[in-house]
Amino acid sequence: MFSLQLLSLALATTILPATLALKLPEYKALKTSLNSSVLTVTFHNADSPVNLWNQDTQDGLTDLVERLQHDKETKVVIFNSDVPRFYVAHLDLSMPSVAEPTFAETFATLIYNVSTLHQVTIGAVEGRARGAGNEFLVALDMRFATKTDTLFGQPEVGTGLFPGGGGSQFLPGLIGRGRAMEYILSSKDITAGDAEKIGWINKAFDTSAEMYTYIDQLTSRLRLFPLTALYGAKKSINRASAPTFKDIVADGISFRKQLADPLAQAAAKKSAALLANRSQFEVELILPDVLPLLYQ
Amino acid sequence: MFSLQLLSLALATTILPATLALKLPEYKALKTSLNSSVLTVTFHNADSPVNLWNQDTQDGLTDLVERLQHDKETKVVIFNSDVPRFYVAHLDLSMPSVAEPTFAETFATLIYNVSTLHQVTIGAVEGRARGAGNEFLVALDMRFATKTDTLFGQPEVGTGLFPGGGGSQFLPGLIGRGRAMEYILSSKDITAGDAEKIGWINKAFDTSAEMYTYIDQLTSRLRLFPLTALYGAKKSINRASAPTFKDIVADGISFRKQLADPLAQAAAKKSAALLANRSQFEVELILPDVLPLLYQ
Amino acid sequence: MFSLQLLSLALATTILPATLALKLPEYKALKTSLNSSVLTVTFHNADSPVNLWNQDTQDGLTDLVERLQHDKETKVVIFNSDVPRFYVAHLDLSMPSVAEPTFAETFATLIYNVSTLHQVTIGAVEGRARGAGNEFLVALDMRFATKTDTLFGQPEVGTGLFPGGGGSQFLPGLIGRGRAMEYILSSKDITAGDAEKIGWINKAFDTSAEMYTYIDQLTSRLRLFPLTALYGAKKSINRASAPTFKDIVADGISFRKQLADPLAQAAAKKSAALLANRSQFEVELILPDVLPLLYQ
Repeated sequence: MFSLQLLSLALATTILPATLALKLPEYKALKTSLNSSVLTVTFHNADSPVNLWNQDTQDGLTDLVERLQHDKETKVVIFNSDVPRFYVAHLDLSMPSVAEPTFAETFATLIYNVSTLHQVTIGAVEGRARGAGNEFLVALDMRFATKTDTLFGQPEVGTGLFPGGGGSQFLPGLIGRGRAMEYILSSKDITAGDAEKIGWINKAFDTSAEMYTYIDQLTSRLRLFPLTALYGAKKSINRASAPTFKDIVADGISFRKQLADPLAQAAAKKSAALLANRSQFEVELILPDVLPLLYQ
Repeated sequence: MFSLQLLSLALATTILPATLALKLPEYKALKTSLNSSVLTVTFHNADSPVNLWNQDTQDGLTDLVERLQHDKETKVVIFNSDVPRFYVAHLDLSMPSVAEPTFAETFATLIYNVSTLHQVTIGAVEGRARGAGNEFLVALDMRFATKTDTLFGQPEVGTGLFPGGGGSQFLPGLIGRGRAMEYILSSKDITAGDAEKIGWINKAFDTSAEMYTYIDQLTSRLRLFPLTALYGAKKSINRASAPTFKDIVADGISFRKQLADPLAQAAAKKSAALLANRSQFEVELILPDVLPLLYQ
Repeated sequence: MFSLQLLSLALATTILPATLALKLPEYKALKTSLNSSVLTVTFHNADSPVNLWNQDTQDGLTDLVERLQHDKETKVVIFNSDVPRFYVAHLDLSMPSVAEPTFAETFATLIYNVSTLHQVTIGAVEGRARGAGNEFLVALDMRFATKTDTLFGQPEVGTGLFPGGGGSQFLPGLIGRGRAMEYILSSKDITAGDAEKIGWINKAFDTSAEMYTYIDQLTSRLRLFPLTALYGAKKSINRASAPTFKDIVADGISFRKQLADPLAQAAAKKSAALLANRSQFEVELILPDVLPLLYQ
């Protein structure tokens, strides 16, 4: 006989087959934790109170993504942060590699490879996700966030640049062309509650506990399903709604040119001067409010 | 003199020119009813209490769509169901044609042809629309539903497959990439109320009567307008937002390969075993809750 | 020390560098006003109480867009109307150029050029924006509106035509394929409140004052940022979400053919007859209610 009680009991005692678990090195700016085919990757740049995306972040993610591309056991990857009030502030523009001619293609390749992983990728956001942090986030499969103190934004245009790592192309696929224009061009933030309303994120929660309960319920299903089925569906959804590698790289190349724009360089200098006698933590908390000062 | 009262009176007595009505055969799994250029097609698989999409459904729809392609009189086609609690449960995987090498292209061709009909196509949903039922639905021009007891879902990934008939490509064009990923990858249902909020359906209604009042008002306009104008607009909207035939077929070919995946075949066997001593009707009512049992 | 009070004080006294202001001629159907790199363009067809889009409108916009393409100082262009209750009613089909073989390409070129301007383009809507008015609007970067008495619609299908100037392709990128189908095929209006909910416009406001306060806050940021950065972002967003020139022209060519359709011509004749003894202002106020009368 069919019984819901029996079903849920059966479900609770489901035992997964033993797997060849993914082996990961220690990363400088990422913490990792693997639990029965669900990998949690935590942004943690110990050198930055605002969790800047630096060379260690990028090298770690690049290595991780390559390993996931050859891994058949991990089903879900959750990306979160343990730095208070910051998911990822933005790219550290003082990274030496930013000036290298290959940077655009390297960053674009990482974003593209993340968007096309066989595994299901989930962003769990508490705090500010801006710039490269939000570009990475919108390339993931789905996004969840807490409402308190979480903000999303692309501050690049306000600093004389623009989101050139794919973010400008993934965002319209979530919120439409008109709203992508408003948020990207004005470099202003959006709250998690408003982000949920327009589709920037899948769902916003009152508390961290509620968010992880929801994500746990989701991953308890996803980790059961065959990776080939998950990837088959992802490939098809991406075919209809994700930018191609060529399109993302085209953005990256424009971005590199824009870095040399005198107005962008002037904004960068002004930015350094503004930060000289201020706490970066306080400035980054309200970054969109500070951007107009770069043009005084 | 201009008067709203006169206008609405005039409207009520509008007489349409006599037309060469569409001639349709009796279909085994579809009921049809034509009323002044508005055709209603009712999914009714008499052999299935959950309204499975079987060979009769597919053959009937294929024939119907070919006739509509050559018909100049019908303006609107409404697709509904008269099976209690089920719009269309999903594809009957025991259909012999599923194993044939031409199945992917046949199904993809049907979905593509439906999405490019000259006539306006409307889904009126009461009950569960899952799998092939939802793939068909999202390829229609628009969708309406009652809130009580209506659910939409793509359970394929949970059975080791994926929506390979175009649904994975039409859905992101309605609800965005992030939400399409969440619902398709997790194989969970969405209610009509939530589906309206994110754009999966156009509008949800408290009662069946309210839904049909809304649809009647809509079709009372649509049936007046020239078919050439309706099709001109459809072609243009589709150019911007519908997958191409090539893209849909590409999915179909991947789907056929996935049918041979050992994990998909194991899930199918488990599914058969689970159903052996249970009522299909009760299992299908809560299908997303049952899927994890296939991996015990 | 870092202080929010100081920041906002600093912001208020920001002084922009002197610029070579854009020089514009007097336009017959457009009023223009330039204020520190923010240009306001007001639709004002003095010959039409419903602000029809006529030859003067089109010639003015074409000239304006060409000048903006070569202008490096203007950062933002706001398009509004000063005709009570009408933003732009629709195209004046009695314009002689409509019948010319080059019309489709001329109109499509204008819409495409507007969508790819370096400057940020904003629609500020009070009153009805229908037909060509709404096609122009959805090609802009963003749209705001007051809730009272504002309506959006594409009445073309109801007159035997279809939106052939790009609108049918821009709209699905804002509201999805299903809702674009419903509104374009039925030729019915949507209110500003509902338009905000589904993404047709960015935001709806209770009063004109509230709308302009919001737009002012937005432009006070946008006018500071480098034009190269604004354009870099726009190009990237458009790459992902705007139709190409080739796609828009393809629509324009279909539209021109549809103009010759006997049913479209019959609807146009009927329309002229209906208007003969009625006030155009009153008919246009409720245009979607009147369209069914063309088929009596």
